[in-house]
Amino acid sequence: MEPARPLDALNRARNKRVIVELKNGRQYIGTLIAFDIHINIVLEQAEERVDGEVTRKLGTVFIRGDTITIASPQ
Amino acid sequence: MEPARPLDALNRARNKRVIVELKNGRQYIGTLIAFDIHINIVLEQAEERVDGEVTRKLGTVFIRGDTITIASPQ
Amino acid sequence: MEPARPLDALNRARNKRVIVELKNGRQYIGTLIAFDIHINIVLEQAEERVDGEVTRKLGTVFIRGDTITIASPQ
Amino acid sequence: MEPARPLDALNRARNKRVIVELKNGRQYIGTLIAFDIHINIVLEQAEERVDGEVTRKLGTVFIRGDTITIASPQ
Amino acid sequence: MEPARPLDALNRARNKRVIVELKNGRQYIGTLIAFDIHINIVLEQAEERVDGEVTRKLGTVFIRGDTITIASPQ
Amino acid sequence: MEPARPLDALNRARNKRVIVELKNGRQYIGTLIAFDIHINIVLEQAEERVDGEVTRKLGTVFIRGDTITIASPQ
Amino acid sequence: MEPARPLDALNRARNKRVIVELKNGRQYIGTLIAFDIHINIVLEQAEERVDGEVTRKLGTVFIRGDTITIASPQ
Repeated sequence: MEPARPLDALNRARNKRVIVELKNGRQYIGTLIAFDIHINIVLEQAEERVDGEVTRKLGTVFIRGDTITIASPQ
Repeated sequence: MEPARPLDALNRARNKRVIVELKNGRQYIGTLIAFDIHINIVLEQAEERVDGEVTRKLGTVFIRGDTITIASPQ
Repeated sequence: MEPARPLDALNRARNKRVIVELKNGRQYIGTLIAFDIHINIVLEQAEERVDGEVTRKLGTVFIRGDTITIASPQ
Repeated sequence: MEPARPLDALNRARNKRVIVELKNGRQYIGTLIAFDIHINIVLEQAEERVDGEVTRKLGTVFIRGDTITIASPQ
Repeated sequence: MEPARPLDALNRARNKRVIVELKNGRQYIGTLIAFDIHINIVLEQAEERVDGEVTRKLGTVFIRGDTITIASPQ
Repeated sequence: MEPARPLDALNRARNKRVIVELKNGRQYIGTLIAFDIHINIVLEQAEERVDGEVTRKLGTVFIRGDTITIASPQ
Repeated sequence: MEPARPLDALNRARNKRVIVELKNGRQYIGTLIAFDIHINIVLEQAEERVDGEVTRKLGTVFIRGDTITIASPQ
């Protein structure tokens, strides 16, 4: 059996709600639509949270990979 | 069906109004004219906002990809 | 005998509890499921700790490699 | 028709006055003479502005691409 | 005679006690088991020091290369 | 005619006095002896200035490219 | 005649005393034994200085290239 690869975990989260956290402390929660090897991520029905508070509804959001710290299925 | 790729979301936003946010906290709102794999982005009829206030009208603005955190269609 | 390589140490830690620390000071403790050459890491049954306190249960968490300082088996 | 590319916008700005802004907050205004794929930029008849005030006349200035946030024709 | 290369110095330190210092100011002292061209380093029988005080015993620790400033045999 | 390239400007400055500024705010003024595509630069008869004051005479100084913001002939 | 390259200056400094300065403000003074294209540097009979004061004798020290700002023969 092949050893598991990190992107497999993102692949299993497609079309599911995920939380993505950025180096600047912001969180984006939305449905994971797309990602690539740079960990660029697109979420739909997304909202932004700062210090736990919803600050914006964003619809579709493209997040640049190098600004991300973690991503986790909800 | 091919899985969706992040740049597809930017491609669908061509010629539409988008908001682009930078690591330094500034926002640029304009019509998405061009982007590339580095996420370098060109907006037209652009304005800059800082803390929600319009600070400048910029016409055409080239934004270097590595300074971007998120991009979202308006 | 081949000289040891750093990823060998991560490979021996597969399916074991590890602590992963980030440049922003956060710690993630969980079961190491996957990693790659960028040191992107996936943990399961993960929890986040800040200043030694458990702040969140995360289930599965994908951690982007360039945000990691150290990883150590528990 | 080929989709527009970000460097096309810089190409159209050759020999025109542009403003280039850096991650450190400084602005350089000058005539765009040259750029490359790293977004290294050379301006002539350039001046530096900090907080909106002209701080220096620089003649020719080479700006390293990775320090740039935005560039915009005047 | 070939000119010396930096990794030769790390190679001579294999299985010896070394101190590794990070951009965040932390020090890790342990037996150098492995390193690679990215300067990812694995130490065993490692301890962490902050401001000269031992803060943790870590056993095996994987240190991501891009977070390292210096490494020095003890 | 070929469009101008940024390194042409550095090439014309060879053997001339240039000022090189770093991300940490320091300035190095000296005779430009060598540069490469990473914008690593070597100056001779160099001096360092901090806040406009000469702080050191350095003779030959190698400046790592990724720490440079701008370079300008004097 | 070939134009001078930046690494030539480091090559001429082999086996000589050099000062290497880091982004974190620390200085390492020692005999230059080895360097590579990433500007990873190894010094011997090295000492560390902070704010001009000798803080440590280090013997051999490996300095990761991306943490270096300047290097200068003494």
